[in-house]
Amino acid sequence: MIDALAVVMEDIPRDECLALLRQLSVGRVAVSGRAGSPFVVPVNYAIDGETIVFRSDGGRRLRDLVDHPVSFEVDLVDPMHRTGWSVLVEGLAFASERPVDGVVVDPWAPGPKSHWVRIVAGSVTGRRIRRVGPGSDPRAYV
Amino acid sequence: MIDALAVVMEDIPRDECLALLRQLSVGRVAVSGRAGSPFVVPVNYAIDGETIVFRSDGGRRLRDLVDHPVSFEVDLVDPMHRTGWSVLVEGLAFASERPVDGVVVDPWAPGPKSHWVRIVAGSVTGRRIRRVGPGSDPRAYV
Repeated sequence: MIDALAVVMEDIPRDECLALLRQLSVGRVAVSGRAGSPFVVPVNYAIDGETIVFRSDGGRRLRDLVDHPVSFEVDLVDPMHRTGWSVLVEGLAFASERPVDGVVVDPWAPGPKSHWVRIVAGSVTGRRIRRVGPGSDPRAYV
Repeated sequence: MIDALAVVMEDIPRDECLALLRQLSVGRVAVSGRAGSPFVVPVNYAIDGETIVFRSDGGRRLRDLVDHPVSFEVDLVDPMHRTGWSVLVEGLAFASERPVDGVVVDPWAPGPKSHWVRIVAGSVTGRRIRRVGPGSDPRAYV
């Protein structure tokens, strides 16, 4: 029945992108690597206003990240219905060993993770694929 | 009970990374953007040997991608158990309007998607977080 529905790709407004970011807890931080290809790794995160917060150990990866333009991506896909959405935040990353007030981030990964990384959102964009047809519920997407 | 288990982060060997890539159908292509922050977007893909294949429309995004170093990331996370794995392929992207022999990629997104993009894997790395303890099944991870 999926084939009987039209497929649309639509942009997601910034406010809705931020609401979607608040719904998930794992996203992917991406930073341009030295070899040219971006380094992309999942992290568990929290949201503080329009700032993404996660924790990291020190080291080269953190140095590559801080004070640099980075991206943060979240998505949710439904393979059964071949629908989904994604949100991309582009911003600057800052790090501090002082916790962010009022924000709880309990890292999944082992290690002290004593560095609190904040990505302050600049551009926030999102896209959604959904299937529409007679009688289809416009809210019925992932 | 999760707290009673030790958390380990381990590297995933290349062969196993490639096997994991074959298990999923949606990943994220990342390319260093002009503003410095990578552009990251999910695509549905197929695997041809050690090459990732997906389809794209023409345009600026495709031009940013082809003949450039790009990354391709897949992951699977289990928020309940706070475990998961991720695989990162770094490689070069090539595009052609000729389909890749023997590979079926039926794009979720609308549009003709007449360009077949291949990412030829160079570096393939992966990491896994899992929880271990007395009696825990080492295979019992996402």
